[in-house]
Amino acid sequence: MLKTPYLLFLGDAPDALSAKVAQGIKDWRPEFCVGQFRQEGCKADLGLPDMTITEAVAAGAKTLVVGVANRGGVISEGWNVAFEEALKAGMDIASGLHTLLTDNQALVDLAQARGQALHDVRVPQQAFPIGTGVKRSGKRCLAIGTDCSIGKMYTGIAMEKLMLERGMKASFRATGQTGILITGSGIPLDAVVADFMAGSVEWLTPDNDPDHWDLIEGQGSLFHASFSGVTMALIHGGAPDALVLCHEPTRTHMRGLPDYALPSLELLRDTALTLARFVNPNCKVVGVSVNTSALDDEAAKACLQEIEQRMQLPATDPFRYGVDRLVDALA
Amino acid sequence: MLKTPYLLFLGDAPDALSAKVAQGIKDWRPEFCVGQFRQEGCKADLGLPDMTITEAVAAGAKTLVVGVANRGGVISEGWNVAFEEALKAGMDIASGLHTLLTDNQALVDLAQARGQALHDVRVPQQAFPIGTGVKRSGKRCLAIGTDCSIGKMYTGIAMEKLMLERGMKASFRATGQTGILITGSGIPLDAVVADFMAGSVEWLTPDNDPDHWDLIEGQGSLFHASFSGVTMALIHGGAPDALVLCHEPTRTHMRGLPDYALPSLELLRDTALTLARFVNPNCKVVGVSVNTSALDDEAAKACLQEIEQRMQLPATDPFRYGVDRLVDALA
Repeated sequence: MLKTPYLLFLGDAPDALSAKVAQGIKDWRPEFCVGQFRQEGCKADLGLPDMTITEAVAAGAKTLVVGVANRGGVISEGWNVAFEEALKAGMDIASGLHTLLTDNQALVDLAQARGQALHDVRVPQQAFPIGTGVKRSGKRCLAIGTDCSIGKMYTGIAMEKLMLERGMKASFRATGQTGILITGSGIPLDAVVADFMAGSVEWLTPDNDPDHWDLIEGQGSLFHASFSGVTMALIHGGAPDALVLCHEPTRTHMRGLPDYALPSLELLRDTALTLARFVNPNCKVVGVSVNTSALDDEAAKACLQEIEQRMQLPATDPFRYGVDRLVDALA
Repeated sequence: MLKTPYLLFLGDAPDALSAKVAQGIKDWRPEFCVGQFRQEGCKADLGLPDMTITEAVAAGAKTLVVGVANRGGVISEGWNVAFEEALKAGMDIASGLHTLLTDNQALVDLAQARGQALHDVRVPQQAFPIGTGVKRSGKRCLAIGTDCSIGKMYTGIAMEKLMLERGMKASFRATGQTGILITGSGIPLDAVVADFMAGSVEWLTPDNDPDHWDLIEGQGSLFHASFSGVTMALIHGGAPDALVLCHEPTRTHMRGLPDYALPSLELLRDTALTLARFVNPNCKVVGVSVNTSALDDEAAKACLQEIEQRMQLPATDPFRYGVDRLVDALA
């Protein structure tokens, strides 16, 4: 979908955290990144070569990817000057910001005149069919969480990386804007119209080689009152053969819902399996991915050991200890 | 949302079935219907007074409601002539057809010039918030099915009618286009963007008197691979106190999914309760609504008796035997 390689646009990012999308692209797809574009006052630095638009095009860059989010997700005037320059120099632009590139008529006119693309990856770029529930070839693994924003994307993309290193066939399938910008394709599932959610996930994970694994990026949580419908569509549209449970052991309530405690891993396992097995009777829970960032090393290891014994499943923190045990479980 | 009363537009309906939306309005909201508008060749007849546009306006009609669906949900040229006449005479127009009124520029221009409304009820008419999961006052009952198109709307609206007759406080809350046209308001949930599904259901069922019941129209099925996400959003956004299970005992596979048998009532009960109680710990299954239209009277009664004994819940066919036992269970 997005043409590679990229020039990563950091703009006037006020700190490193505001450039976390660009950091994710650089971490997971370094081969896509020819350089970074920074403006006056930029406090983020990915350690990539700083390039002008002209230098980046000369180095082969095909798409300027907005890898920075400022407050409110808006696009500042200073950024638009750079965007116009990029289009004039022959690049496409991709953005996951709330303010759309295609709402800026000057950019639309420039892109149309030159046959270039403006990719607002937060918005579905096509119509999707209604789900059919038809069995597909190939294997699928879905990360599901006891809550939102708990490490589901990181888990899936880390598993893809290790599987490819091991010579396995694997594709991370992005379902949110950050994942789409990192991998260059995917569906912004939370922006798809209700009737077509499951169908869009089926479209994203088509027939494949019998030993190929799709690592489907999870969204929401089956027990999150605001977003559970999106998770449900992933379970039925994805028809996973394997589920990885994702958890954050110190969280006192669900994200954005102060009155809701997190469900137990056991409740998530049992409920998700019941629903998943209705479309794929062979579905299994293969492991637990635990975000232990709030714990010190000793506490993290104790936490993982407790979960392993209680759930009788391999448990790891992908960021801290890698995903070998989850990939072992798939293989 | 829609101004009442209505003139029901039957156009050149080729048979009675094609006018089933109009029939539903006449059955459930007879007080909204001043008459019917039929064109040459119309084979449907609701038994309402036939009126011209002018006569209907004189009788007080405020909205022309398209109560007929022709093949493909398109709008024929002959209909547009009548629609223009209705706008010129001062009526709004409401339609649930796939082809939108607002795609016809002549109608849009006429309506805008006169400050009248074109209601395409298949399309959300407003932005909805993200769900908050905050507890609301008042009671809510949700119909959930072992499959789609199984009698969920009929069950809810029949319960509302009986409850009002009994002096109870009750509101049927429509979540699909037919329900919206019948009641004059609601949300077309299957056309809402994924992130806002639960929030739209919360919006539809706000704080109310402690003894007031919302009868929420169900959609899809928790076990239907194409539409389960929509059902999930109803369960968490609706936060029901009571669930009515809906079933069709002779159906051999799920609607549109030839490879899928229906889930058992037990599986539906247990899975839905687990998910519903996460947002409303007091949620109970109160009864079973069975569509026995494919059975003769003796077989229907035997079927209901078997389900009652097996599930230990009141069971009825609302169309055949009324909803007294379901309303008794709520009261």
